[in-house]
Order: sequence, then structure tokens, then C-alpha cells
Amino acid sequence: MTISVAVSGASGYAGGEVLRILAAHPEVEIGAITAHSQAGQRLGSIAPHLHALADRVLVDTTVENLAGHDVVFLALPHGASAAVAAALPENTLVIDAGADHRLESAAAWEKFYGSEHAGFWPYGLPELPGQREKLVGTKRVAVPGCYPTGGQLALAPGFGAGLLESDDVVIVSASGTSGAGKSLKPNLLGSEVMGSMSTYGVGGIHRHIPEMEQGFSKLAGEEVTVSFTPTLAPMPRGILTTATAKVKAGVSEAQLRTAWEQAYANEQFVHLLPEGQWPTTGAVQGSNHVQLQLAFDTHANRVIVTAALDNLTKGTAGAAVQSMNIALGLPENTGLLMQGVAP
Amino acid sequence: MTISVAVSGASGYAGGEVLRILAAHPEVEIGAITAHSQAGQRLGSIAPHLHALADRVLVDTTVENLAGHDVVFLALPHGASAAVAAALPENTLVIDAGADHRLESAAAWEKFYGSEHAGFWPYGLPELPGQREKLVGTKRVAVPGCYPTGGQLALAPGFGAGLLESDDVVIVSASGTSGAGKSLKPNLLGSEVMGSMSTYGVGGIHRHIPEMEQGFSKLAGEEVTVSFTPTLAPMPRGILTTATAKVKAGVSEAQLRTAWEQAYANEQFVHLLPEGQWPTTGAVQGSNHVQLQLAFDTHANRVIVTAALDNLTKGTAGAAVQSMNIALGLPENTGLLMQGVAP
Amino acid sequence: MTISVAVSGASGYAGGEVLRILAAHPEVEIGAITAHSQAGQRLGSIAPHLHALADRVLVDTTVENLAGHDVVFLALPHGASAAVAAALPENTLVIDAGADHRLESAAAWEKFYGSEHAGFWPYGLPELPGQREKLVGTKRVAVPGCYPTGGQLALAPGFGAGLLESDDVVIVSASGTSGAGKSLKPNLLGSEVMGSMSTYGVGGIHRHIPEMEQGFSKLAGEEVTVSFTPTLAPMPRGILTTATAKVKAGVSEAQLRTAWEQAYANEQFVHLLPEGQWPTTGAVQGSNHVQLQLAFDTHANRVIVTAALDNLTKGTAGAAVQSMNIALGLPENTGLLMQGVAP
Amino acid sequence: MTISVAVSGASGYAGGEVLRILAAHPEVEIGAITAHSQAGQRLGSIAPHLHALADRVLVDTTVENLAGHDVVFLALPHGASAAVAAALPENTLVIDAGADHRLESAAAWEKFYGSEHAGFWPYGLPELPGQREKLVGTKRVAVPGCYPTGGQLALAPGFGAGLLESDDVVIVSASGTSGAGKSLKPNLLGSEVMGSMSTYGVGGIHRHIPEMEQGFSKLAGEEVTVSFTPTLAPMPRGILTTATAKVKAGVSEAQLRTAWEQAYANEQFVHLLPEGQWPTTGAVQGSNHVQLQLAFDTHANRVIVTAALDNLTKGTAGAAVQSMNIALGLPENTGLLMQGVAP
Repeated sequence: MTISVAVSGASGYAGGEVLRILAAHPEVEIGAITAHSQAGQRLGSIAPHLHALADRVLVDTTVENLAGHDVVFLALPHGASAAVAAALPENTLVIDAGADHRLESAAAWEKFYGSEHAGFWPYGLPELPGQREKLVGTKRVAVPGCYPTGGQLALAPGFGAGLLESDDVVIVSASGTSGAGKSLKPNLLGSEVMGSMSTYGVGGIHRHIPEMEQGFSKLAGEEVTVSFTPTLAPMPRGILTTATAKVKAGVSEAQLRTAWEQAYANEQFVHLLPEGQWPTTGAVQGSNHVQLQLAFDTHANRVIVTAALDNLTKGTAGAAVQSMNIALGLPENTGLLMQGVAP
Repeated sequence: MTISVAVSGASGYAGGEVLRILAAHPEVEIGAITAHSQAGQRLGSIAPHLHALADRVLVDTTVENLAGHDVVFLALPHGASAAVAAALPENTLVIDAGADHRLESAAAWEKFYGSEHAGFWPYGLPELPGQREKLVGTKRVAVPGCYPTGGQLALAPGFGAGLLESDDVVIVSASGTSGAGKSLKPNLLGSEVMGSMSTYGVGGIHRHIPEMEQGFSKLAGEEVTVSFTPTLAPMPRGILTTATAKVKAGVSEAQLRTAWEQAYANEQFVHLLPEGQWPTTGAVQGSNHVQLQLAFDTHANRVIVTAALDNLTKGTAGAAVQSMNIALGLPENTGLLMQGVAP
Repeated sequence: MTISVAVSGASGYAGGEVLRILAAHPEVEIGAITAHSQAGQRLGSIAPHLHALADRVLVDTTVENLAGHDVVFLALPHGASAAVAAALPENTLVIDAGADHRLESAAAWEKFYGSEHAGFWPYGLPELPGQREKLVGTKRVAVPGCYPTGGQLALAPGFGAGLLESDDVVIVSASGTSGAGKSLKPNLLGSEVMGSMSTYGVGGIHRHIPEMEQGFSKLAGEEVTVSFTPTLAPMPRGILTTATAKVKAGVSEAQLRTAWEQAYANEQFVHLLPEGQWPTTGAVQGSNHVQLQLAFDTHANRVIVTAALDNLTKGTAGAAVQSMNIALGLPENTGLLMQGVAP
Repeated sequence: MTISVAVSGASGYAGGEVLRILAAHPEVEIGAITAHSQAGQRLGSIAPHLHALADRVLVDTTVENLAGHDVVFLALPHGASAAVAAALPENTLVIDAGADHRLESAAAWEKFYGSEHAGFWPYGLPELPGQREKLVGTKRVAVPGCYPTGGQLALAPGFGAGLLESDDVVIVSASGTSGAGKSLKPNLLGSEVMGSMSTYGVGGIHRHIPEMEQGFSKLAGEEVTVSFTPTLAPMPRGILTTATAKVKAGVSEAQLRTAWEQAYANEQFVHLLPEGQWPTTGAVQGSNHVQLQLAFDTHANRVIVTAALDNLTKGTAGAAVQSMNIALGLPENTGLLMQGVAP
């Protein structure tokens, strides 16, 4: 069963990562590879790491070029994916790496993105309770944001088991620079980034906040408030999430550990490590795996959960391919067998 | 006025940093340089970056070798500095980079360090309200821990102005690897560290927690509870502190900003950056400077303060030299004029 | 056709990389995983990036544990592989990642390794003229050294086409730290490595010199002299080879380019990039691919060839698996479809 | 004796490094700080590591703004410095960090820079035989290129002592990214640079070649030919030069070592390390020091010399300030006492 796939935004890191995974996916045939301003160029000059696709020529991102494929991966500017999806043949599975269809609340979308809400598609984080079944047979997938992937996987078990307070979740995440994309900004120059760390998007303004609050609130059955601070780390890939939440009175560390164990016992990509072993982003680099660990700070009455993932893989393209597999009825790990590239 | 100085623990990063600063300090003459296991070796083979001192031969860390200097910098294993200090001539200014004399509470010391409390010396963080005067003319200085330097500088103004709640301070810090010293641990190998981030000492167990709670509690006039999580970053130096605290009802962002401005208006080493400009550890690398910035997340009701410093300089040796200058009545910035080494 | 495989030295980076590749190899079943001092431990605590094999328990490196598999990958101390291979069942394909069987000349071996020559096995660099056929059906493979892989792939076409002088080849290579293994040496600490570069093994003493001279001399039909200097770079993986050789009188750049193009036209893993595009180690990270480019410095009369590869993949484990595929008659790229992990 | 100084090109890394050093220079008063496109901006927003100068406002790079100072540091586009210097008051000491006045040969300049030769000023590398005296009392200084500083310091002793052959010098250097400046080029993004190495400017085309050949040829008394390949390393600062030259018949390693020892015995910034100790760029980071080591590969008949320096300090701004000190009759190390910032 060969699945024909088109990938837009191939000149960016997200599109490149989708292609990297698909190039070795046994069931997929890569069709059109599109880009905005680099149509006509050889992929080898734009994404030299994709040797298997070096001679592919990029075409324009148009409905004509995208139509006719079983699956279309989109990485377009805000507001564009809805129209493109609507124009594609009805049977097309459209997987959107952008933010447009991640939020259910139009108010939350307008507040953080300042544009018209495009709607809500099935959310590509199957490890969240109730999410996997929504992806089966779907024709639409909204790939989660990278930080929200780490944040939600880190704390979902606690909220799902009713062990955490809903107010005052505090999350601080560190991300490698590929999360900022290929934009030529002075602060993203190697000379500025190497040997240095910094915060950005501070003070409740980051767009990934409503996404995380949405996920937690669903599980908690009430509104969860999240304080989130992203930091930029001197590495190309990886997200280290440090998530803390207040623990309800009377809850023990054993109960916490059990909730996390049960949440992920049957998940092949999400691993609560053996007690005492702590996650590292290096161990999951280039793979769809996520490592977790937790500790209960009884003095501060907070559970601290660390999650390590690769922002481009499980944080973006790996999740996209994993969702595609589910949607099409393939084994979920098809094309996602790669282990972490470490050291 | 030439000040004779002895430096112990010269083979470690902290001792090496003290020497790096003192080598260019206009009033200091470096006398004995001591080490545990490397006595007899040339400093140039141990600390090749100290060209001015390459031919110095290390001597044993004994009272005999340390005595006879105006100032002695100690970097010894726990429990050793008290005895050494007591054995030195009365007039000696002893500056301890170790933890032994940082905590006032014997109970806190025993809980986190598991040994007998050595006492409490004047604390080498002059920018904290009331601390500078205690350092004037002192013969003893306890150099603060690196993480507590960032944490306390980040939030002290809010506690000092009575704007923050005392419960539920949450701090997550990222440190370069030199904070872990020269110990040959597998997880500190370059191959393990580069391109990766991880948490450690999670769950309320880190020894810097009582130090930060001590400082905040004094300012708040009541017990402050801190949840602290350290993370290891792929860079040699630097600490990025992300500190958050709940804001008291009715407090505005303007009030917060004013409190921080006032706290550091006359401090030459601590800088609240212009609004919109965020700290980077790279900008303070190798210098005694600290950059701060704050934002008020009204939705989560938390102020988030970012502090960037160099763990070896303002976080250790720079603070030690700054305290020495104050103790001896020298201009506080003597030997500390260096700017950040950036890019 | 399931191939049973045993991997020794699983606790080192080379063994870990073999396992990383084999974990996703469609024809392989991983049997015994052995280690020297860590027998009895769970692989997940030693190589946390190998999630698929986390619960495997390491066993002792003994002939008993290794026997009974179709293929055995060895990563043992010098001098050990010959005896182990001899003791294994005759039909076993033994692939040695160590140096013991790379050199044909006993004199060269004794000069550089100071021990008894163990012999010479088919050399696992199929892209060298005449090498591939020697690997077909073999029961013994000597995996090349990482630096010699880059050096030989860089200059072999020129020697093979008779375009280069045999005296005075000069090669300078930069390697990521994983090339030095997991040994706990002070200079390999992250704090020492990050933000710094250095040379080592300088002056004609590096053990990879005879290996490169051997390969070049065969192609040139006469003795080739190589000056080789390795440098340590602040990255976990990758080798950037800068190889230069004098060009014979009358040879043009076009002739040079043609020789390289022809040498690799049909090689799926070695790529002479389009003119003007230069190799980067990042583009081949974690993959079995090698990028090359050349330029003719007519003023100095030297051709300069840059080769970029991953020291652990094409430089070690990828070559090992590629050789296994050839030996067993599988498509050469089985299990080696992964693209470079970039950025 | 306060020296008034103006610094142009303050928004670039070279200008920023000049300011970093001058901010702590005891004899200097920093006057006008100029920039092309950022005139009117606060220096603190452009170069946040220069805390002492944060409130300085940049002015236009005009003769009016630069005149009236004792010393003017220039970092202007090609072709501009000659006119500016000519327009400044006669007594002004003009120090040009650009390339315009480094080459004596108009032919060499035109070949590599494709523009009109601006002339030749005293060359700011006082450690080269005969150079220091030319800087005493001069009103013009051409600061050497960064790569040529490493290359010339590496091999000058051998050429000066007549021990090396003049043909076929081969140099490969690795540089941190700040050498490429702040230009927003895709290949300089952190995501592209980190974890990767690459070559560029390959094949005898790099503009630093004529500069190195000029220096060597003077010492050798005949034309020296250099093959030079630069590589880009994943670090912000530093140059590691690996320079090799053929050794004349009959020359011993002892003779080589003696020549290097004698050349630098009285040089406070250039250090031939004790035998067996090899240079690292980390040990000289942020300082004006250079580390050297050599080895004689008798098999290849080449001496290999490693030089480590900081491309921005001894490679640019440190050399500029050192030359200023000599020109003005100050102790040569005034303002240059800083040791390497390591780890």
C-alpha cells in the first residue's frame, strides 16, 4: 500500500524534518515537495542532509501541486492552511504543522494570534487520554506545538488522575535553536547563541500557553492556569521541559509515580524512566521518543516533572508522521523506528 | 598598598578563576598557590590559561603555607575551612568559596549537608540590602553559592519592597558545566554534554535551596518557600535563572519595575536592563556583571525575573574578590573592570 | 531471513552506535549484548538513547555468549579479537571495529601499535577500488579507522587515476569528541572541550597514518607519504577531513573533477557535491553518508579535498553494518536508509 | 597621560572587542563611538556586554566625529580607511582593523581584493622580526588579519632561522564564527553552525594567503608558497592554526625547537609551551595570548606547528591595542593584562 505524500514548506526545518523521516518510511512515496520562494531549486542545495532527495526540484505551493496525493503535510503561514485544505480533494489527509487548528477556543486564538480563528482539527498528540481514537481515520490533523508537547506529556498523568491543583502550574522550558526556524535574526547567529542562554517571550505572552492550558483543563475538568517561560539553549535540537504543579492534599509520591506509570505503560514513545534516572535531550535526539521523570518536593508541595524530547521530531514532524500512521491504519511506529542519535 | 594573597584549591575551576582575576588586580601580590594532590606541579600544566602565573609551583594546602598573607582564599572540602581559618593569624582575611559558612541555621545545614554546622560568616553578596556594611572591615567572608546568587538577586527587590507572596517561589536555573567542577564523571564528558540538556538534583534536594530561602526570608520578614530545579546546559560557563513568585494583590507592574530599579540603581554590577531587553549569559561571560529583566504575567499572577550571570565570576570568584575589596576598603570594582567576553 | 547478531563492547560509543543502527535493521535480530565491566546491567542505564533495547541485560564478553549468532560485532581491546574470532564457530561472520586486522604490514603494525601483528582481514571500505568484492561472502571484516575513512575517500580517486604525486600528502582532520570514546580523561570534560579546539597526536605519531598510507599506496602503485594531524572539535560527532596532495604536472581541474565524479558516480553513500557546494559534518550526522568537494589551488599546485562524515556512523558502525550487508548478500543499504540528522 | 580614543564600526564584533579592551585600559578615555547604520542608538542595545559603555550613543562615522582624538580605530568597508586617515588631523594615530593597508604589493592586493591598492602601513604584528621598531612612534597601523596572525606566528621562527623550505607550506585553520562577523548569512545561523564543521574559501582563493606569503617571504628572503584552507568551527571565538612546512635537509628537531624558543623567549604574549603540552584556543580566550607547540614528523619531513589564539583579541582588537601601546610609548601590555577566560 504505497501512500503518496506531498510536503509543503520543505525549505524550513519542520518541512525538512518531515522529509527526513518520510525518506525512510517503508510505505510512503514522496510526491510534490513545495516551497514559497525557492520553487525551481534543487532540494540538495537547500536541505543537503537529505541525500536521498537531493535531485528533487521544489515546486510552488499551490493547490494544483498538492492535490492528487493521499497525504499533504502543510507548513504554511498563519491563516493559509484552512483554505488550502478546503480546496484539496475530499479524501486527502491534511496534516498541518502550523498553529491554525490547534486551539478550540476562538477567543484564545484571537487573543494570542490576533487573527481570525480557523477552527479546530483533531490534535496530533495520541498519548493524551482520548486523543488517539480521534485520529483514527481522520482527514485532518493539527500537529501540536513543540513546547506544548513537552508540557502536556509532562503533567497530563497528574491531571488525568486528579492529583494536581489547577491553579499555578509553572513551566520553564529550554529549546534548541531550530525551534526558531531558519529566520535570519541577529540573536540566532551562531556567535550570539553559542555559549549563551537567554529567555524570551516572557510574562504570559507565549502562544503555546493557551495550547497547554487547553490540554490540562480538559483533563482536570476545570480551568488550569499556566505560567510558561521559554529559554533558548546553545544546541541545535531538543526541548527540556521542567514542569511543576501543586499537589493536592494527601497525595503521596507513590500515588504520583503510579499515575505516571499507568499513563504511559503502553506507550511506545513516551518513557517514564526508572527511578533515579533523569531525562536528557541528547538521548532522544532525532527520534520520536520522549523521556520523563518526576520528583515530589514535599517542602514546596510541588511535583516536578522533567520531559526531554526533540523539538523537530516528537515536537513536530515525528508527531505528524505518527498521526498519519494512526489516521491511515498503519502500525503507529511505521517509519519511526529510529533510536536517539547519541552521543 | 600591596595586598599579599594566598589561593588554595588552585587546581579547581573556582581557584583558577580567583587567580585569573587576581593576576590582573592592581593591588594584589599573589603569594602561595596551593592544591591537594598536585603540590609540586607547575601551574601552567594545570591551568594553562593563566599565562602570567605559568611558572608558579603549587604547594601543599597547609596552614603554614597559607599563613603570612593578608588574604587567604579557600576552596576546601566541607568542614575544613573553619579549622584552617581558626589556625591562621588573627589579622588574616579569610574568604571561603565553599559552603561551610553560608547558612545561619544549624538545622538547615545539617539537613542538607549532613555534617556539623561550622557557623556563619558575613555573606559575600553586597547587593542584598544590609549586606555590604557587614563586609566592611570583616575578616571572614562566606562566598555565596552560584545558583543562590542568581536567585537572590532576581527576587530580592520584590521581597524587600513587600510585593511578593512568601509561599511558592519557583526557580529553574540553567548552568554551564564548570559549575560541576573538574570531577571526572561520565555525564560531564563533552560527548554527553554537548547538544544536550538535562535536569539534576530535582525535588527539593539541592543544597542551594536553604541558602535562597534564608535570603528571601530575611527580606520578607517571614519564611519563604522555594522550589528549585537546576538544569545542566551545553556551555562551559553561565547561569540563567528563571525565578517566579506570586505577586501580592493590588500590586501593579509599574510598582514591580520601580522596586527593581530602586534596588539596583546604584549598583555597578547588577543591571536591570531597559524594558524589552532580555538578559543573556553570553553578555556577562567572564565578568562580575549580572543582567536582570522582569515581566508580570497577570494571568498567572506571577512576576518572572530572569537573571544572567557567570557562575565562576559573579557566581564565585568575582564575588570573592568584590568582597575582598569591600573588606579591605578598596574601591569595590578594583580588579573587576573587565567587561563581558562576547560573542 | 533473520540474521542473529551479537554485539560486544556495548557500553562504548562504537558498540552503542552498532546497536542504534541494528535496532532498526529489518533483517536483524539482536541476540547477546556484551560488555566488560558492566555485565548484568540493564542497557537502558548505560545507553539511554536505545529505547528499543532498554530492558536488555548485558552479559559477559565470552566466546560462549558470542557463539551461536550469525554475526558478531567486536569492539575489544587490542589483541583480543583474533583469539575470539578463532574460537567462534566457523560460519560466524566476525566484524571487528578495532584496529587489530586493518594493516597488512606486520612492521607497520608493530611500529605504531607496539604489539604482535594479528593479521589482516578484508577491509570494510567498499568504496575503495577493488574492496567491495573482497567483502562478498567474507567471514571476517576489519572496520576501518574513522580518520582513515575520511582521508582515503577524500584522495583515493586522485591516486586511482594517477593524477597525484605520492610524496607529501598533508591531511588535517577535525573530529567530534565521541571519537575519543567514553574514557574519563580531564581534557574530554565538557568544560574543557566546549568553546575550544586543540591538536593532539601531532608529528607523525597517530596510528591512523599507516592505515591511510596503505590505502593510498595500493592505488598509487608506490609508497605514499602522509603527514596527518588530528584536531579535537567542540561537537559530539563528525569528522571534517581537509586532505591535500600535489598534483602531477599537466593535470587540469577538469581532469581532477572527472576522476572524483567517476569514482563515486555509482556510490550511494559517497557524494561529490555540485561544484560550489561544500561539505558539512552536520549534513551527514547520524547517517552513513559522506560528502566531498574539491578545489585545485594552482598557485600551490595542490588539490584540496574536503570530506565530511560521522565518525561513529560511516566512520565506524555504519561501515560495519554496510560491510555486513555486503558479506551476507543483502542490499548494501539495508538498515542504512537514515538521512542526516540536521540541523 | 590620558589618551582620547575614537572607535568606528562599534556595532561589529571587531569594534566591540576594541571597546571591550579599552573600557578597562587605564590610560584611555573613550570619545566618539561611531557606526554606519546604527547612529543614534544606545550602545547597550547593540553590544550588551559592554556595561561600562551602555549609555553611550553612537554617532555617524564621519571625519568630524573621528577628528580631535589622539587615536582612531577604524573598521570600515574596503577602500574607505585611506581617505578617512588622510582627512584626519596629522597627529592622529590611525589604527586600521581592515585589510586595506596590510599588503605591500599592489598586484597582490588587486588580485585578491579586486580594487585599487590603498598602500601599506606599518603592520601590527610586533612579534615578527623587525616589526616592533616600525610601530614605535608610528601614526599608522594596519592590524593583521586573524588567520595570518596565527599562521605567521606559527612558522616565522623557522623561516627566520633558515630551517624551512619555501615551497609548499600547507596551513589549515579552524575559526570560531565571530570571524565571519555579524552578517546575517544562513550558514552562520546557530542551527547550522552548532554540532557541525565545514570548509570554505578553499583552493587558494582566501584573501589571507597573500598576507601570509608576504610575511614568510620576507623572512625567508625568497618567495614562499602557501596552501591555506580555513574551516568554520562550532564555537564563538578562537583560531586553531595547524601549519606545516618542509624542513631543510640536515635540520634536527632540537634545532627547530631552539629556533622557536629563541624567537619567543622575550615575548610576553606568545608562548612556546613546554614540550608535550599542546595549545588550546580555550586557554587564550578573550586574551591577547598565543600558545604554540611544534613537532617534527621526520617520516613526512615536515614540522607541524599548532598555534592557538583568539581571533577577536590577538587576532584583531588585542593586536590593535598592543600596537597602539607601542606607537604611543606605553608599556606594551597596558590594558592587556587579562588572562584567558577558561574553562
